[in-house]
Amino acid sequence: MIESIPSLRRIIRLALEEDLGSGDITTDALIDPWISGNASLFVREEIVLAGLPLFKRVLQTMDSQIEYEEYFNEGDRVSAGKEICLLKGSLSSILKGERTALNFLQRMCGIATLTSRYVETVKPFGARILDTRKTAPGLRWLDKYAVRIGGGSNHRFGLFDGILIKDNHIAAVGSITRAVELARRKAPHTLRIEVEVEDLAGADEAFKAGADAILLDNMALQQMHKVVQSLKGRLIIEASGGITLESVLDVAKTGVDVISVGALTHSARTADLSLEVIPEAANSS
Amino acid sequence: MIESIPSLRRIIRLALEEDLGSGDITTDALIDPWISGNASLFVREEIVLAGLPLFKRVLQTMDSQIEYEEYFNEGDRVSAGKEICLLKGSLSSILKGERTALNFLQRMCGIATLTSRYVETVKPFGARILDTRKTAPGLRWLDKYAVRIGGGSNHRFGLFDGILIKDNHIAAVGSITRAVELARRKAPHTLRIEVEVEDLAGADEAFKAGADAILLDNMALQQMHKVVQSLKGRLIIEASGGITLESVLDVAKTGVDVISVGALTHSARTADLSLEVIPEAANSS
Amino acid sequence: MIESIPSLRRIIRLALEEDLGSGDITTDALIDPWISGNASLFVREEIVLAGLPLFKRVLQTMDSQIEYEEYFNEGDRVSAGKEICLLKGSLSSILKGERTALNFLQRMCGIATLTSRYVETVKPFGARILDTRKTAPGLRWLDKYAVRIGGGSNHRFGLFDGILIKDNHIAAVGSITRAVELARRKAPHTLRIEVEVEDLAGADEAFKAGADAILLDNMALQQMHKVVQSLKGRLIIEASGGITLESVLDVAKTGVDVISVGALTHSARTADLSLEVIPEAANSS
Amino acid sequence: MIESIPSLRRIIRLALEEDLGSGDITTDALIDPWISGNASLFVREEIVLAGLPLFKRVLQTMDSQIEYEEYFNEGDRVSAGKEICLLKGSLSSILKGERTALNFLQRMCGIATLTSRYVETVKPFGARILDTRKTAPGLRWLDKYAVRIGGGSNHRFGLFDGILIKDNHIAAVGSITRAVELARRKAPHTLRIEVEVEDLAGADEAFKAGADAILLDNMALQQMHKVVQSLKGRLIIEASGGITLESVLDVAKTGVDVISVGALTHSARTADLSLEVIPEAANSS
Amino acid sequence: MIESIPSLRRIIRLALEEDLGSGDITTDALIDPWISGNASLFVREEIVLAGLPLFKRVLQTMDSQIEYEEYFNEGDRVSAGKEICLLKGSLSSILKGERTALNFLQRMCGIATLTSRYVETVKPFGARILDTRKTAPGLRWLDKYAVRIGGGSNHRFGLFDGILIKDNHIAAVGSITRAVELARRKAPHTLRIEVEVEDLAGADEAFKAGADAILLDNMALQQMHKVVQSLKGRLIIEASGGITLESVLDVAKTGVDVISVGALTHSARTADLSLEVIPEAANSS
Amino acid sequence: MIESIPSLRRIIRLALEEDLGSGDITTDALIDPWISGNASLFVREEIVLAGLPLFKRVLQTMDSQIEYEEYFNEGDRVSAGKEICLLKGSLSSILKGERTALNFLQRMCGIATLTSRYVETVKPFGARILDTRKTAPGLRWLDKYAVRIGGGSNHRFGLFDGILIKDNHIAAVGSITRAVELARRKAPHTLRIEVEVEDLAGADEAFKAGADAILLDNMALQQMHKVVQSLKGRLIIEASGGITLESVLDVAKTGVDVISVGALTHSARTADLSLEVIPEAANSS
Repeated sequence: MIESIPSLRRIIRLALEEDLGSGDITTDALIDPWISGNASLFVREEIVLAGLPLFKRVLQTMDSQIEYEEYFNEGDRVSAGKEICLLKGSLSSILKGERTALNFLQRMCGIATLTSRYVETVKPFGARILDTRKTAPGLRWLDKYAVRIGGGSNHRFGLFDGILIKDNHIAAVGSITRAVELARRKAPHTLRIEVEVEDLAGADEAFKAGADAILLDNMALQQMHKVVQSLKGRLIIEASGGITLESVLDVAKTGVDVISVGALTHSARTADLSLEVIPEAANSS
Repeated sequence: MIESIPSLRRIIRLALEEDLGSGDITTDALIDPWISGNASLFVREEIVLAGLPLFKRVLQTMDSQIEYEEYFNEGDRVSAGKEICLLKGSLSSILKGERTALNFLQRMCGIATLTSRYVETVKPFGARILDTRKTAPGLRWLDKYAVRIGGGSNHRFGLFDGILIKDNHIAAVGSITRAVELARRKAPHTLRIEVEVEDLAGADEAFKAGADAILLDNMALQQMHKVVQSLKGRLIIEASGGITLESVLDVAKTGVDVISVGALTHSARTADLSLEVIPEAANSS
Repeated sequence: MIESIPSLRRIIRLALEEDLGSGDITTDALIDPWISGNASLFVREEIVLAGLPLFKRVLQTMDSQIEYEEYFNEGDRVSAGKEICLLKGSLSSILKGERTALNFLQRMCGIATLTSRYVETVKPFGARILDTRKTAPGLRWLDKYAVRIGGGSNHRFGLFDGILIKDNHIAAVGSITRAVELARRKAPHTLRIEVEVEDLAGADEAFKAGADAILLDNMALQQMHKVVQSLKGRLIIEASGGITLESVLDVAKTGVDVISVGALTHSARTADLSLEVIPEAANSS
Repeated sequence: MIESIPSLRRIIRLALEEDLGSGDITTDALIDPWISGNASLFVREEIVLAGLPLFKRVLQTMDSQIEYEEYFNEGDRVSAGKEICLLKGSLSSILKGERTALNFLQRMCGIATLTSRYVETVKPFGARILDTRKTAPGLRWLDKYAVRIGGGSNHRFGLFDGILIKDNHIAAVGSITRAVELARRKAPHTLRIEVEVEDLAGADEAFKAGADAILLDNMALQQMHKVVQSLKGRLIIEASGGITLESVLDVAKTGVDVISVGALTHSARTADLSLEVIPEAANSS
Repeated sequence: MIESIPSLRRIIRLALEEDLGSGDITTDALIDPWISGNASLFVREEIVLAGLPLFKRVLQTMDSQIEYEEYFNEGDRVSAGKEICLLKGSLSSILKGERTALNFLQRMCGIATLTSRYVETVKPFGARILDTRKTAPGLRWLDKYAVRIGGGSNHRFGLFDGILIKDNHIAAVGSITRAVELARRKAPHTLRIEVEVEDLAGADEAFKAGADAILLDNMALQQMHKVVQSLKGRLIIEASGGITLESVLDVAKTGVDVISVGALTHSARTADLSLEVIPEAANSS
Repeated sequence: MIESIPSLRRIIRLALEEDLGSGDITTDALIDPWISGNASLFVREEIVLAGLPLFKRVLQTMDSQIEYEEYFNEGDRVSAGKEICLLKGSLSSILKGERTALNFLQRMCGIATLTSRYVETVKPFGARILDTRKTAPGLRWLDKYAVRIGGGSNHRFGLFDGILIKDNHIAAVGSITRAVELARRKAPHTLRIEVEVEDLAGADEAFKAGADAILLDNMALQQMHKVVQSLKGRLIIEASGGITLESVLDVAKTGVDVISVGALTHSARTADLSLEVIPEAANSS
């Protein structure tokens, strides 16, 4: 469903324009546009597949005549060496769109695959893994989609669809209690109110003020544990701040409800995918 | 000079719109727009600074009244804990633009810092480190700018400003010789012609056909060495394909002229930067 | 703060382009651009002022040199005949931007003024007045801003920042309970879950399933009252559906928490404002 | 033909983006995209139908596979309870596009319906009913199309395609005679020249200066009558200024040629239309 | 006033983006952005100056700090060798914006200069020289502005702001009379109605049907003369079709009111202007 | 292949919007959209055909149902009076898109035809004819495509894809040698380095500094000849500056490799093409 979001049109155009500019000089000089070919999309390492519909939409923007045979679905775990999809169409079009389409897909698979590793690590403890707003500029909605495909959940998409009262906000209005009260008065009733807290006292104040969730920012594990003991089940407890694949298990063990991890989107390695293009002639031999 | 490229306007707007949407609900509910504050931008790890002019341009799009005191220049190596820049202006504006501006800056510093590590590694052997087209969609020009700041060089920006004849092109027209001839006839005289080759025979054919550069794709070190011995100084020799910080030294030792590294832009970890916001009141105490 | 939302740029440009097109033929034929003048913005009926910052931004897009003396603030109740603001600048610019700027302002004042009448009507009963998504295409964020200025609250801005499970959704998944469960599993934890219900049984099921809010759609007053008696304080209760200035008091008396009114934005009469332009010469006499 | 105007693309995208943003959270959480359904578009009150092609274009931008059975044409008077059109396609797509498509259609039907009431009122007197430039920002061309469908005529679309010399213009150049002369010298010969006048003397001067039309702004009925007696048939006479359904008949009786009514577009109530979605399952039972 | 038309923003951006793309490689490699310089804009042949405000706006989009000393005004006749304007600012910015700004200016001066030659040729006979819609795509408003500056007048800007009934329209509805009647019924009263006719009979029919103007398309001079004798002063008579600087005098002598000339915009030679850049150092010596 | 360049979308939309604006008043008033017709595209003078795919794309943006029978291919020389293509479809659509589509096509054919005359003139001497950056704003890529179709070659597309060191650059850094060295150090290895020189000494210095090409700017024929004698075959030699159809032969005789001609794109006369529309009825008789 990601491919039908209206505003994605803009990032797809930007990406195609920055790669194609005034045209593909090499391909236009060497290959006639009516020569057709096949191309096999395959993986060189185990991944969680994310972004295939977008990969196709990028190529379709170039050439609506290309045909696809898909062997896997979004969210499938695909092992190294497997073919994901076969493309048939104008060799020239495939060569022109290849890199841009792959750049989207490799990033999204990279994020989904990394997310799935976090999710599996914490599974026994029931915590949900969340993304943050630390995404590549312009790619927020794709990055967050990939997190969902990898089994993670989304935190708010931007500043507009979630209330998160941070220390700066609290400092500006004077107290957690006052901040929650102001937010509740002015915000849509469809949104929960979350407050960033630094210790048990802050957590308690937030709860009493009527917060729906608290974010424990860079809190020590012991502190976290205390907050969970005191407030679990009465509001949503989120852990955040520099959490890695190494440390996430201990965080989950404290019993927090959700764990947000910036690295999912700001530092995922892109997945190793390749498009092997097979000119018709070579194909038939 | 990066900040004056006209088309960057589009990615900056996209990034601001995806984060701000209909507005920052939390800040609008809690903080009056005329309350001013300071904010200190500092690093938590050693980095090569890249993207500060863009960081400022993003914030300026939000609020042209914010003032900046800068303590470092683009390309400076900044050690952990240092303050890069001090911002003064509307607290509300700073809070609204913070994450988007940081998302740009952290990515660019990450790329520049990683690039500089490659560059230093190969420095004794005189090889230049190049980027590829494996960039985040929409961020091509920023990613490549960061590579330059980190001491690397740019490969072609897209399909439009460089001729790179790949195996698919060669297969489609029959031979390297024929491909180079066609490209030379149709391409602008301002562009060099580079050919991807797989072995010494291909390298020789490309040279004889008049290619200006060859790209040795995933070639074994020994093979690479032979090509260098045979052709060094007669055309530009580029090594490419899965090169890492671990392997780049050995590649450089073969004597190739340039080494292109996809990881610079597709898998750099973002740099650890932070914006510490100091409300006026706290400030004056 | 409305005027700094980045995406408003698009609707302002659209509005200016559709009115100005290739230029103001009449003014360009008759009035030299360096002739300056004053213009007085005043109201012909009592209004709640909303949109003045946007009115100025529209004119500033035309001509950044125009100066403003403002006599009222956003949200002020202004009585008939009062002057809101005085403009000084190029007569030509003022004449060219006048209609477009007024079209924004009159619509926004109209919505704020109508909203304030609803809000005052229900004030003794503590219910909040909410808008809906029935806004003029492209003007969603301005329409909803005007509702806030008029004392109302915003419902969700779009399909992306609030969960509202309607009868069609329930029919598709089989039951309210199942629908709430699915939504909770997949939606960001920052969002509340609201369910549209038709009777007390549905309201009870929604509550037991863990819904945070229910929407009573076109429910009879008696029914509404029963739901309130049963669930008040345990979740948020919203009344909706064809509510008018005549009927809103009775709805509020049932004790519902919030009342959403489509007419606020889809059928508000525009406010009667005028810009009286005074050429310099006439002015000095 | 309205749906093929190239610039409408922008307002349609704006409207879809503001409602859909990062996606329809509720529908995406609950309904698989391959589940199909029917939806019946029907009216709850008598209307003049306007905007159906645009309603379809909005939905097609979401999903080009939806099919339509139409039972009425643009401009038809449709009585309360009638079904206008039946939609078949992806239930998810229909739910996502429903509100945006309806927001366009309901506004346009509202304007067409109100226009038709004015047109019928004055029919015996041969006056044409015109719109003004008091339209919702960004919706000028749709608002004016709806007026035509309702039987009204269009005044100029913007400042670029009609010459209307107002009192401010006259004040700036000194006299009506001078203003008409300047306009005639500089304006395209394809445009008529209209002058706003306040009394019979002004009307006479405009006529003698060669104006093609005069606009009687907020003139008393008696005055209007005198102008008509003096100038009818020698130039086009337009009445304007606060004309309502109550007063329009008396204005028409004076014998003016055209009557422009701002309320047609700035204050029309939206028409009461609904889309009843029928999930396949419910449908087949 | 041309420079303030809102939609010009789009063509200026397009032009800057197509020339600058990812940046000016040469200048960025060689010249630091803080080095300032002067540049003298001068003409190598006699021209009518048109487009200087746009020339400045293009450069300002690059760099708002450049300063200008202007020695001539729009519409001035400037003789060969004269300096039009002196620029002072960043040498790098001037070099980057130079070609794009000149491409606009040279085209506009070319059109204005050619127009003025037509205008002077026919001056003794009182005919006005008009442009057509045969303009460079995207440059319609600039081309037509240049015609005005050159002393010509504008025909309609597009299909939206003038009624011109052509032979195809007449063929489709059956007769000139019927065509004029339909147009009058449906078109805004602010527009004149012009009909393309081929002979005197057609001209007479158009006049009797109430046309406000006729266009004599590719008519022989003698025929033209007859139409003028018969209808001069009763409607506007326009001559059109392949008129050149050589033939325009004879056409004017027939007594037609306006003469439209496609060549003004579709085939004007660009004016010979140059920007001589003087680096600061060279300057001071 | 020109028609698939992603960024062309913007100039096509701009052109259609500026001509169609709020709609074609004349055609909408007179011709129902379901009336079909034929239209014959033919030439009135001998041309080289360029731009037919774009002509079709413009019309397709209006109406995707129009069908085409093409009788010539891009690059064909078509003699006066020949029919290029037959269109079948909605008469209304064809009339609306006709002028915009022709404006593109006539410009492109004009450029291709003029280019072919230069190319043929110099053919015996083996020099290539090149365009410059003196193109119409927004039409760079179309202008340069037409040059290729006419048998010419492209110089760099913009400032981003070619290095051309001009006298201003040299003045700023001190010497040709220093300039070449700086450019080589900073520019992508995929680009050649070209230097503008004024005399033989400059040419020699450029060669020794390692330049790949030199541009002889406005050099006298004798001087040019000397440079060729000295450097032919050692780097690419380009002649430029005010070269006309009259002077180009002598320039070619000097033996330069490439000759760039600004007039190809800045002053080509548009080709004389026409679209003769045949309403169905007339057609069937």
